[in-house]
Amino acid sequence: MEAKVDNLPIEADAVIVGAGPVGLFQVFELGLLEIKAHVIDSLSVVGGQCVELYPDKPIYDIPAVPSCTGLELTENLMKQIEPFGPTFHLGQEVVKVARREDGRFDLETSAGTRFITKTVFIAAGVGAFQPRTLKVDGIEQFEGSQLFYRVKDPEMFRGKNLVVCGGGDSALDWALKLVDIAESVVLLHRREEYRAAPASVSKMKALCEDFCMQALTGQVTGFESKDGMLSEIKVTGLDGVTRRLPLDCLLVFFGLSPKLGPIADWGLEIDRRQIVVDTEKFMTNIPGIFAVGDINIYPGKKKLILSGFHEAALAAFAAAPFVFPQKKIHLQYTTTSPKLHKVLGVESPVFD
Amino acid sequence: MEAKVDNLPIEADAVIVGAGPVGLFQVFELGLLEIKAHVIDSLSVVGGQCVELYPDKPIYDIPAVPSCTGLELTENLMKQIEPFGPTFHLGQEVVKVARREDGRFDLETSAGTRFITKTVFIAAGVGAFQPRTLKVDGIEQFEGSQLFYRVKDPEMFRGKNLVVCGGGDSALDWALKLVDIAESVVLLHRREEYRAAPASVSKMKALCEDFCMQALTGQVTGFESKDGMLSEIKVTGLDGVTRRLPLDCLLVFFGLSPKLGPIADWGLEIDRRQIVVDTEKFMTNIPGIFAVGDINIYPGKKKLILSGFHEAALAAFAAAPFVFPQKKIHLQYTTTSPKLHKVLGVESPVFD
Repeated sequence: MEAKVDNLPIEADAVIVGAGPVGLFQVFELGLLEIKAHVIDSLSVVGGQCVELYPDKPIYDIPAVPSCTGLELTENLMKQIEPFGPTFHLGQEVVKVARREDGRFDLETSAGTRFITKTVFIAAGVGAFQPRTLKVDGIEQFEGSQLFYRVKDPEMFRGKNLVVCGGGDSALDWALKLVDIAESVVLLHRREEYRAAPASVSKMKALCEDFCMQALTGQVTGFESKDGMLSEIKVTGLDGVTRRLPLDCLLVFFGLSPKLGPIADWGLEIDRRQIVVDTEKFMTNIPGIFAVGDINIYPGKKKLILSGFHEAALAAFAAAPFVFPQKKIHLQYTTTSPKLHKVLGVESPVFD
Repeated sequence: MEAKVDNLPIEADAVIVGAGPVGLFQVFELGLLEIKAHVIDSLSVVGGQCVELYPDKPIYDIPAVPSCTGLELTENLMKQIEPFGPTFHLGQEVVKVARREDGRFDLETSAGTRFITKTVFIAAGVGAFQPRTLKVDGIEQFEGSQLFYRVKDPEMFRGKNLVVCGGGDSALDWALKLVDIAESVVLLHRREEYRAAPASVSKMKALCEDFCMQALTGQVTGFESKDGMLSEIKVTGLDGVTRRLPLDCLLVFFGLSPKLGPIADWGLEIDRRQIVVDTEKFMTNIPGIFAVGDINIYPGKKKLILSGFHEAALAAFAAAPFVFPQKKIHLQYTTTSPKLHKVLGVESPVFD
């Protein structure tokens, strides 16, 4: 979503970390104050948890929206922030934040995108989504060589004997895709029911009946290695019996789980994995860094989307003096302010 | 909207003062916690300012609602609170709130409706809407006898010589209605342009051309009385000349203006016409009385509808121990909680 010609840092007024509903609404509230925002998210799409965890499940407690799905909520917010043209930097995590001598912040992502920004808004929800890992002692030594939690290039599995772990859409989709490339594919799931789309499950079962794929029920409980290479895994079935399964590569798709990640190292005051803020500015202990939504904590905090919306509004007002030190900021109403109508790109009605 | 068979007090868990958007959303947040609410408003319709001041003007800053009018916002909130069946007591103001010995509150409205309630939520916005009065020294002595700010029974003006002041819909509507009943109607407006609906203005002008009504431009600047009765008013025109206008009754429709009203006398801590609350419970200095929306004040307060929504959510959680002293209240999500699905009256989806 960005055309990066070189690695010069981007000079920004505001960088929002997290493109969930609160991060998106932060764009809106900053936009009303004429502050343009860059938005970074570890996922490759906007919407955060709403889209990752419940895209099609209804939410009932967004004020004045009797019912909407996580996807609809995200789409409505994207429409609402359209006038403010935010720049999205997706599929990348913030790996470094450091205060500069001039009071601004150096900020860098895992993709090498660099910013010099006046303000930072952490709207990272429960944290960055990371693949859930296989909990088998010592197996992490093969990560990146024979153990994978994502597929970057399917071609690297050509001619290999694969074990694909998981029962959701990612596991099934990759098993079905790699069956044409690999020498063999074993799909391993802890139980007999699959969470994946019924069509994918039927397709997988048909391939198993044709002996093109094998589906096993059980969990990885150990492994063997030979010459420093992972040679086989131990699979314990529902019957309690452990069997040995030789393989070249192990692909694990256990879903995503949120991690606070590198944010923990920014020097922010943290209380039980949440960032401490005040209730006036929703600012952290570092002036210019704000935290809004599920990731913050203050007396009375409830992890509600609507609370994040309120926090984003107040944080925007508190951030304005960092961006425009000379300007006096007044609260104006979108219903009546010709100035806000201009920034929103809508026509000003004539009032009596 | 209520069938009052006698004047026994209504025993209530929660009484909400104000049926604007924040008062309506307070019903929702209480409903999720299984607290049933009564809602009182001085206006005869729900929606508060939104419906009174800008029913058809777009609002752009309701999160995830790119644009909606005040009326649409109200309709959506009414739909959202439908599962909780609140009882509305409209067209009446709260005139008395007093703490009882048992910790509950005696509450009474101008219509004589009485409550004994465990909690009170003041969501009165900028206050109760009251008719703007005519600013002429001494004229208030005729209020209710010859000077009127509302019409209860049009028949009382039969055969009278009326002066109707104002240029909005109320003034024009009443002038057009009373012209058939009264002996004579003079419509007096401070300028030549009318704020009322164009159709009403055309109708009024046609009646003036037929000599059935008279339209004057000017302002009431004084009056004369005779035997303790208002006999004539002095009208100063745009030309600066003051003319005398004899009359039987003066009807003034200058629109509504908000007043804090009797709330100021409840013993609440007030700061510049706003009620002081904390930011954890949004509770006033009187335990059990909460204040949400534009009427409250706390460090960082912005008078935004979305802030009122957040405040209503936190106030509901804080109120639960007053209503259910024994019950432990947990935050649940409308997306995933089968219990909330039950109170919302929606089907619970099956989760993996």
